[in-house]
Amino acid sequence: MTIHKGIRTGGRSARVQQSIHTAVKSLLDSHDRADLTVPMVAQSAGVTPSTIYRRWGDLPALLADVALERFEPDEKLPDTGSFRGDVLAYSEQYLDEMSSELGRAMLRDVVATGDNCCTARCAEMITTRLAVLSERAQARGENHPPIDFLIDGIFAPMVYRILFSASNPDNAYIHRLIDQCLPVPE
Amino acid sequence: MTIHKGIRTGGRSARVQQSIHTAVKSLLDSHDRADLTVPMVAQSAGVTPSTIYRRWGDLPALLADVALERFEPDEKLPDTGSFRGDVLAYSEQYLDEMSSELGRAMLRDVVATGDNCCTARCAEMITTRLAVLSERAQARGENHPPIDFLIDGIFAPMVYRILFSASNPDNAYIHRLIDQCLPVPE
Repeated sequence: MTIHKGIRTGGRSARVQQSIHTAVKSLLDSHDRADLTVPMVAQSAGVTPSTIYRRWGDLPALLADVALERFEPDEKLPDTGSFRGDVLAYSEQYLDEMSSELGRAMLRDVVATGDNCCTARCAEMITTRLAVLSERAQARGENHPPIDFLIDGIFAPMVYRILFSASNPDNAYIHRLIDQCLPVPE
Repeated sequence: MTIHKGIRTGGRSARVQQSIHTAVKSLLDSHDRADLTVPMVAQSAGVTPSTIYRRWGDLPALLADVALERFEPDEKLPDTGSFRGDVLAYSEQYLDEMSSELGRAMLRDVVATGDNCCTARCAEMITTRLAVLSERAQARGENHPPIDFLIDGIFAPMVYRILFSASNPDNAYIHRLIDQCLPVPE
């Protein structure tokens, strides 16, 4: 079920991929995701089902790919002047995105594929951005804990609560996690 | 997609459910889970597909139900004489179960359903057992942190790594998390 990224070589292949992504997004606006099928997407995109099976393997992998693309970061991270402030701002932004209906569905689709490539892309969204914040802190000469410590202390609990709790975590919850990992200097 | 627990009233209904569960387990021994369909399960269990749709809503919910049943605790928790020792023993047992192929598939199925009932049952496996360990600690007159603190500090990171990392966490990782939440008394 690996997504063959290598196939994305631009030209016809890229256009086909784009039309399939567009078909999925448009079908999701008018249909329940449980009702989507590969033949339905293929017909809407004007390709054969085998094009989709060859490229994505199955429907969950395609849905996860489309969902990941929506959430891959495209804007700059807020620069608050301190590592703690930057992590706080990014955590709130991540919670806001992932606790939305679209965000929860994305996390579910990614997990459902069981595809290491999808889950790694999803986890890398966080590590890549924390790496940017860490570099900024280093440039300021500011001490900061390792990225894995922040994943375990802030983002893992947040994702766990989003996936397994009936109600979403709120900003007060995120602030408590951040206070534990990055205490306010006295 | 709610699983209608109320229907489990014993007698014929319980027997039908049991035969459907058995059919799923047996089909999973011989088929890839991506190849399973509701009509296939129905035929193997000797029921109509509508019996399955009525009871579970869809295939992911049925798979999650079967998977959850396999992991619902049936044996006693180890009693090591201290809260820290008990949490350590239970965490290692949980990691061992959930990082197995069957455990990972169960977590994926549960998340994939998007069904609050399934995800709550999955989360309750942990909270129920930590409540037992907390009661034991109280009976010993031992201090212990709140259950939610241990979920955030130990079990959420463990589940996050199992779902999103290419490689499973190991016991050394769990020990580090426990050292942070429950420091060894000096």
